[in-house]
Amino acid sequence: MILNSKVRTDRIGSDIDALAAITEPGRPWTRRAFTPMFLEGRKWLEKAMQAAGAVTRIDAAGNLIGTIPGKRPELGTIMVGSHSDTVPDGGRFDGIAGVIAALEVARALRDQGVVLDHTLEVVDFLAEEVSIFGVSCIGSRGMSGTRPAEWLARESDGTTLEQGITDVGGDAHGDAVRRDIKAFLELHIEQGPVLQDQKLDVGVVSAIAGITRIEIIVDGRADHAGTTPMGSRKDALTTASWIALGVEELGKALASGEGHFAATVGEFEMSPNAANVVPARVRMLIDARAEVREDMLRFIDELDKGVVAIAEKTGVTVSTPRLVSDNPPTPGDAELIDVLEAACETAGARHRRMASGAGHDTAWMARITKSAMIFVPCVDGRSHSPDEFATSDDIALGAAVLLDAVKALDTKLQGTE
Amino acid sequence: MILNSKVRTDRIGSDIDALAAITEPGRPWTRRAFTPMFLEGRKWLEKAMQAAGAVTRIDAAGNLIGTIPGKRPELGTIMVGSHSDTVPDGGRFDGIAGVIAALEVARALRDQGVVLDHTLEVVDFLAEEVSIFGVSCIGSRGMSGTRPAEWLARESDGTTLEQGITDVGGDAHGDAVRRDIKAFLELHIEQGPVLQDQKLDVGVVSAIAGITRIEIIVDGRADHAGTTPMGSRKDALTTASWIALGVEELGKALASGEGHFAATVGEFEMSPNAANVVPARVRMLIDARAEVREDMLRFIDELDKGVVAIAEKTGVTVSTPRLVSDNPPTPGDAELIDVLEAACETAGARHRRMASGAGHDTAWMARITKSAMIFVPCVDGRSHSPDEFATSDDIALGAAVLLDAVKALDTKLQGTE
Repeated sequence: MILNSKVRTDRIGSDIDALAAITEPGRPWTRRAFTPMFLEGRKWLEKAMQAAGAVTRIDAAGNLIGTIPGKRPELGTIMVGSHSDTVPDGGRFDGIAGVIAALEVARALRDQGVVLDHTLEVVDFLAEEVSIFGVSCIGSRGMSGTRPAEWLARESDGTTLEQGITDVGGDAHGDAVRRDIKAFLELHIEQGPVLQDQKLDVGVVSAIAGITRIEIIVDGRADHAGTTPMGSRKDALTTASWIALGVEELGKALASGEGHFAATVGEFEMSPNAANVVPARVRMLIDARAEVREDMLRFIDELDKGVVAIAEKTGVTVSTPRLVSDNPPTPGDAELIDVLEAACETAGARHRRMASGAGHDTAWMARITKSAMIFVPCVDGRSHSPDEFATSDDIALGAAVLLDAVKALDTKLQGTE
Repeated sequence: MILNSKVRTDRIGSDIDALAAITEPGRPWTRRAFTPMFLEGRKWLEKAMQAAGAVTRIDAAGNLIGTIPGKRPELGTIMVGSHSDTVPDGGRFDGIAGVIAALEVARALRDQGVVLDHTLEVVDFLAEEVSIFGVSCIGSRGMSGTRPAEWLARESDGTTLEQGITDVGGDAHGDAVRRDIKAFLELHIEQGPVLQDQKLDVGVVSAIAGITRIEIIVDGRADHAGTTPMGSRKDALTTASWIALGVEELGKALASGEGHFAATVGEFEMSPNAANVVPARVRMLIDARAEVREDMLRFIDELDKGVVAIAEKTGVTVSTPRLVSDNPPTPGDAELIDVLEAACETAGARHRRMASGAGHDTAWMARITKSAMIFVPCVDGRSHSPDEFATSDDIALGAAVLLDAVKALDTKLQGTE
């Protein structure tokens, strides 16, 4: 039940259905950034933004922005949004829910006859998901000035990211970095089971976990599986198995502490992978997420030690774990978190603070402005899958929280100006 | 040191070098069955057989056979040989050593002026290694009447095995099954480290291990690696890791018994194999080898129980282990083993009995005649690799054992006729 709000569940539901219909045929729900289907989705969004009274444009970073000028534009901009691109075979709500909720905030304000003092912008960031160019958060990194220059030369299917940004209407060499944004808010589905399990409506995100990727190579020896005695082998698989179990054990131990922590061996490739050959080599890629930086540092340290101990025990060479990437956690802005929690109370949303295990555009926007985000429940925590589902009621309640927070910030941020 | 033998180390060395030169350019040593390089190697072998005084032919199963008629051909045939095809990137001695040793037996007999009572045949079996058609021992299975009829339709590179057999000069529908062979002997490199480690010259093979292949599917659940709490996962990789370690532990326990035993998880494929997704599925293929059938039955039984226990512990679904193939061990013929051991003594070869962990053409020939084989040492047990190496001295000593055994059998087998 949404208290005292002009947010309309029916509009949110029909918008999400309309966007869901724009998918690769026979492959629901797929609308990957830079593809024709993505551009079609954006055309729909552009019209919807215009219908909400916004002036639309594509910024230099390739983000679609709908602007509703404020009464005192010199106060700067309050931005709300998420992303409309999807992973392959999934993403009917991941991203879209936040874009539609932002759109609904604009519409509800108009329905209430409210024009903010600040300029309000609804944003659809370009390519939040890992794109065909192998990188993610291209739009929010562009807007926050954190997009590595060398990314532009990345290739896919005979084209470059530079060309890709041009093709969506951006300008890879233009200045996309924003200095006028005073606050950024994002609504997103939780992509985990906590809200559903605890029968809550909204998660106010305390921090977006840092993501660290670590590669380990196990170097055994290819031997004949029939003739090499069990005691004379250097089996890369069994050594890698000890490591995979060690990562899980270490992850569970750190997860039992205060902050969110998760560790996963997501990639695991064995060679030669032939029935009659003792495994010679395994490459493992670990994905670790920590809300608290100290947990990650402890994980890296314990992993280094653990791998040495395993290699000693099995006699198989294991490379020193290599940090492929290492991003620290992004705490939510304390002032915005307070405003969001107050908005939850106003809207009648049962809420809790929680960390985000997933990365989001908000983490990049936090580099240039006060930023925070909220989660709404999704069924069984399923995400990045065709099974991903969130109800329009839940999204609408989240949108009502955003609406109230935007109105509160419009007043509050005048003082801090 | 070879005692009292006409076997010549120099001839064996130069023959092996000549065949090694017939390899895919830049990819030593590759001469896969059915390829042009294989046919070139066979042309060389045919000439070498003819130079040794043999009449050559390709039988219906595609085997190259050099025949030296005996004085009393009605006694039947003593056959000696192995295979000239290789795995990709390896096999300078695997197979070839046995073909050249058999050829040297024929030459040494001629040099001694000895004509056997039995007909002597030197054989190069077709496609002992897993061929381009995905199956192995095609020639020896043809000769022993154990080649499955459906194999002929197997395809590779736009052709069928049926056509492949025709192309090497065979007749896929002809009768290749032999009833006149009284004994078959094969020399092969050990493909393991035991003879080298124990400073022995010859291994008399007590049995060729049975090979059982077992498939296990671990069915977890794909979840977001960042957002799914460690305690709420169904991680297929960690469950598969417990299984891989269980297979090794069970293999080691059985290997510590009387007979040869080895168990290996040779194939291991994980999906979706994406950095940020909890592993959903692992397919494992276990290769198990047992000299003693009871060991294999115990392995299968313990594996079944172990997998159930692991699935209970981790909460991840594991399929019942599925027997993909299951061949019993092939004991060497007792009479032939005695003859070979006596021949070792005569030739001055330090010897022991040992099981073969690898499969060989001998296992199929044992279906139609008394069969046995001997191993000669190979450096560090390396095989199916460019590093595979065996000295001409070691092969020559093995050939001398074969020569003496053939002569002994020529006499002995008259009594049993």
